[in-house]
Amino acid sequence: MQYETKKRSILKAISWRTWATLTTAVIIFIFTGEFALAVTIGLLEVFAKMGLYFIHERLWQKIRFGKKEIPSFVLWFTGLPASGKKALAEVVFQQLQNERLKVERLDSHDVRPLFPETGFSPKEVERHVKRSGHLCAMLEKNGVIVVASFVSPYRAGREFVRECASNFVEIYMKSTVAACEKRDVKGHYQKAKSGEYRYFPGVDVDYEEPLAAEIVIDVDNITQDQAAGQIIQYLKKNIIKQR
Amino acid sequence: MQYETKKRSILKAISWRTWATLTTAVIIFIFTGEFALAVTIGLLEVFAKMGLYFIHERLWQKIRFGKKEIPSFVLWFTGLPASGKKALAEVVFQQLQNERLKVERLDSHDVRPLFPETGFSPKEVERHVKRSGHLCAMLEKNGVIVVASFVSPYRAGREFVRECASNFVEIYMKSTVAACEKRDVKGHYQKAKSGEYRYFPGVDVDYEEPLAAEIVIDVDNITQDQAAGQIIQYLKKNIIKQR
Repeated sequence: MQYETKKRSILKAISWRTWATLTTAVIIFIFTGEFALAVTIGLLEVFAKMGLYFIHERLWQKIRFGKKEIPSFVLWFTGLPASGKKALAEVVFQQLQNERLKVERLDSHDVRPLFPETGFSPKEVERHVKRSGHLCAMLEKNGVIVVASFVSPYRAGREFVRECASNFVEIYMKSTVAACEKRDVKGHYQKAKSGEYRYFPGVDVDYEEPLAAEIVIDVDNITQDQAAGQIIQYLKKNIIKQR
Repeated sequence: MQYETKKRSILKAISWRTWATLTTAVIIFIFTGEFALAVTIGLLEVFAKMGLYFIHERLWQKIRFGKKEIPSFVLWFTGLPASGKKALAEVVFQQLQNERLKVERLDSHDVRPLFPETGFSPKEVERHVKRSGHLCAMLEKNGVIVVASFVSPYRAGREFVRECASNFVEIYMKSTVAACEKRDVKGHYQKAKSGEYRYFPGVDVDYEEPLAAEIVIDVDNITQDQAAGQIIQYLKKNIIKQR
């Protein structure tokens, strides 16, 4: 929870007083034409009102009215392996952090040590996605924005996470298996095709395309910066709106 | 992240103006003895300064100086089964929530579904404690206070969690095996003694007492309210101090 220090209130009192006393003095001078009177009253005001302003600030510090939290949400990047989820998620994560928002970054592979002994069979992947969804929801509930990147190839798992979260934003990294394979510098597709990997989405198991993702990134036709811009714009319009 | 609405700034402008304009009018009246002048300048000021005050508030809304977060921390309740960890943790959790702090409650048994297939052997218990510690630290890092209750019978596991967290407060529920067995309405000690349970701290495995817990609760000699008071007092003195 945030609070404001006494120092902040003192500084505000001084900054307001400078501004406000000048106004008073000018008004008095215009009305009376007496420069000395304007200055004297101005000076008296300075001391009386700085104290009062400080007290006024401390009272308002106790009043909750009009203090709002920016709602938290779960940004869930889904897509084929090597569709660029992780890289784009990092960019968006950085941009949200630069806005001084409270953001946590969860990548499928970084989370695995937290829930060990999870394999890659469809059943195990679904379990992994669901556990991670619980974790995202727990963070979100506590005011943390979560930027999550998971292949999460199955619709059921993603819908489960959607139900856990309050504000779920599904980002579908739309690309083709051929384009992803071309981008795949680590050679995962090769290994899957040669049979070294099993259950590889796009090769020997299906990747189930989202039917109603909040955001669809046309990976093969826009730059990373454009994609990040598209996401931030969506968030500013739909979630992070300050009044 | 918190922000302040325009409505709040408008209300503050009005409340400040009422207070401040009265001061100006009184000062002018004392100096000039002219009631009409005091009222006219007062009225002019009302309009000029309410607008200025509003602008002043909106500018300060952009300034971070003097806006502080109350530091988050991990309250870790450890102790023999039936030493009263869960009940006391609930009370403290409620009191922190009543202060409008952001608090998450983690009980060993509620967290198990998140990390399934965890048994009760010393090795598995340590793994469970460590995973939970990671989770606590992730929440704490994001500004969430965590109230955790885990038997966590082994020193090594608890020290691991201490290292993960930034502000770790270990609360040792100090009691004797005999007293805990007497309190144990669910009959867990009986089951452990009859051999139905294995690895039961206090019966067939040791509970390793904390050597330097931040807070020691003398469970058998104080009431729950006194214990909660002891913890809240520690927190107000050492962590939740507003300046």
